Amino acid sequence: MARTAGSDGEKTKAAIHAAALRLMARHGFEAVSMRQLAEEVGVQAAALYRYFPTKEDLLYTLMRTHMEGLIASWEAARPASGNAAAQLSAFVENHIRFHVARRHSTHVSNMELRSLSHERLTHILRLRATYEKELRQILRAGADAGTFRIEDMALTAMAIIQMITGVIVWFRPGERLSVEEVADTYHTMTLRLVGAPA
Amino acid sequence: MARTAGSDGEKTKAAIHAAALRLMARHGFEAVSMRQLAEEVGVQAAALYRYFPTKEDLLYTLMRTHMEGLIASWEAARPASGNAAAQLSAFVENHIRFHVARRHSTHVSNMELRSLSHERLTHILRLRATYEKELRQILRAGADAGTFRIEDMALTAMAIIQMITGVIVWFRPGERLSVEEVADTYHTMTLRLVGAPA
Repeated sequence: MARTAGSDGEKTKAAIHAAALRLMARHGFEAVSMRQLAEEVGVQAAALYRYFPTKEDLLYTLMRTHMEGLIASWEAARPASGNAAAQLSAFVENHIRFHVARRHSTHVSNMELRSLSHERLTHILRLRATYEKELRQILRAGADAGTFRIEDMALTAMAIIQMITGVIVWFRPGERLSVEEVADTYHTMTLRLVGAPA
Repeated sequence: MARTAGSDGEKTKAAIHAAALRLMARHGFEAVSMRQLAEEVGVQAAALYRYFPTKEDLLYTLMRTHMEGLIASWEAARPASGNAAAQLSAFVENHIRFHVARRHSTHVSNMELRSLSHERLTHILRLRATYEKELRQILRAGADAGTFRIEDMALTAMAIIQMITGVIVWFRPGERLSVEEVADTYHTMTLRLVGAPA
């Protein structure tokens, strides 16, 4: 608790991010105060306000970081070629890997949209739409190629995203299944869901 | 705001439930005070404490009501006979109908498990397990009959439940699709997910 912000601003910022995600995932955004957060990080409240003038600035940064990280992770993981089924499998695996490694961040990102100002909410929703569009394009490509059967593009994309994000609710590393085994089962289920030939 | 608890205790209790779900879904359990809740209902705080001595008593009641209602709705909707595919369709439809009619309640029930005492958490998790067991039994019956293809019973049950609960995130009555159309598309996707013949 006695540690103060040193010259290493990036380190302090990372510590603030981690502590904020931990506290907000546990108590909810509104219930966490900047004072409580400063204590958790081990800095003076004044130091915290230098990085984040308001609690909502902090929340927005956390959510933007989460979504930009997710988009970047998919850009890195997306196969350069391959049919829609291969693309879909890669999407499912990347999504599960990204989220199980970021449970608190996922929780806060999904729960606290209610606490963003209108303008910032719009920006986060735009990032989400960008990401979800990637999935819809894969689904569309599979449908156009005649390998996927999709009744409703928007519903199918939402169903898949909610199914694969839901893994964080129950998955714990080191228990019955590895993340590889989970991802494997989920991509089998997802391919069947879209009617891809086995 | 001037209304006080009349002789009609049930009415007041229902008003407390509705207001608590609304406030907690908006702000999070921890951020809502009993004083704020009393104001929202239009009763004195003392009246509120007569019904619910602690805020956690109230949360527990809300969650128990939700889960018991869900189990009862399935008991009423469950087909007396029919193969696993018919049972699964009925399960999906009932689940979607129940949850889209109770968005706040679903939100609070899924988010605020963190705020229950250990004993009460155990009870709520037991109710959830009872409900989810119904789904696993359907999946098991379909697998035993050779009509469903299921790699992992537990994962498949979780995937289906998260996919169909997720409808509340985006579904709004009166928009593009009716709840019937949504349920219809979801049960088609679910049947494919478990490899049921079309």
